[in-house]
Amino acid sequence: MEFHERRSIEQIEEGTELAPKFGPDGLLPCITTDAASGEVLMLGWMNAEAFRLTIETGEAHYFSRARQVLWHKGATSGLVQKVVEARIDDDQDALWLRVAVASSGASCHVGYRSCFYRAVPHGDEAGRLLTFREDHKIFDPVAMYGDAPNPTLL
Amino acid sequence: MEFHERRSIEQIEEGTELAPKFGPDGLLPCITTDAASGEVLMLGWMNAEAFRLTIETGEAHYFSRARQVLWHKGATSGLVQKVVEARIDDDQDALWLRVAVASSGASCHVGYRSCFYRAVPHGDEAGRLLTFREDHKIFDPVAMYGDAPNPTLL
Repeated sequence: MEFHERRSIEQIEEGTELAPKFGPDGLLPCITTDAASGEVLMLGWMNAEAFRLTIETGEAHYFSRARQVLWHKGATSGLVQKVVEARIDDDQDALWLRVAVASSGASCHVGYRSCFYRAVPHGDEAGRLLTFREDHKIFDPVAMYGDAPNPTLL
Repeated sequence: MEFHERRSIEQIEEGTELAPKFGPDGLLPCITTDAASGEVLMLGWMNAEAFRLTIETGEAHYFSRARQVLWHKGATSGLVQKVVEARIDDDQDALWLRVAVASSGASCHVGYRSCFYRAVPHGDEAGRLLTFREDHKIFDPVAMYGDAPNPTLL
């Protein structure tokens, strides 16, 4: 699989050539949703290699910004994400993956199904505390990952 | 509404304080989905002001990286995005907005409903041309935006 050169706005927006734009850090954001429920599971980042491997193997690969390594999602946890559909956006600087998650279906290193397990009150309720939208963890992150460093950075 | 200081991993991942992390460029990615259909409409970017205005007004505001200005989505097009629910991710460096879009329901400056109107073939079909998943534009971008500069950058 090859990435095409970005030659014109017309080509990028209206064409059928894949010509992704990676950021100054070489990364492109990837939205990953559960293909069955539509729920957003996570926002990951891909370098060119992760993008290519995802498309070619049909399993989500990301680039871990915390660890600065290519990351085959599920290699440690078994929670592999099988690509059902991949979509690129208008200016080709963001990817959307619709996936089927193996095993328990979780995608979040904290143990929840989705990384987006808390709601931010808005409008008249702006400023109130976050509210949990998932009431239990699907797995125990300590049992799953042992003493591997937590990818969350302050 | 205030943003809390980021003090510990425990606070960030398991707590109920909103303590978002903006990138080195001061921006945080925002996934915007149609609250009714679940479809991903766009990936936008927010600076602290856009984030605050979105939560306080209940209408999506972004920071345009192309124009380098705060952007009240729909101010020109009428395609305002009303926040149905806002969610923050585990390490609080990405937002997910579930929205109801006013008027025609489109969110893409090219004229389509979603910015993600093309699929990237994967697996055995990796390397083939992109395929369109929307077969017509909802609006005519020239009629809508006139000669405003196209936000897509090469």
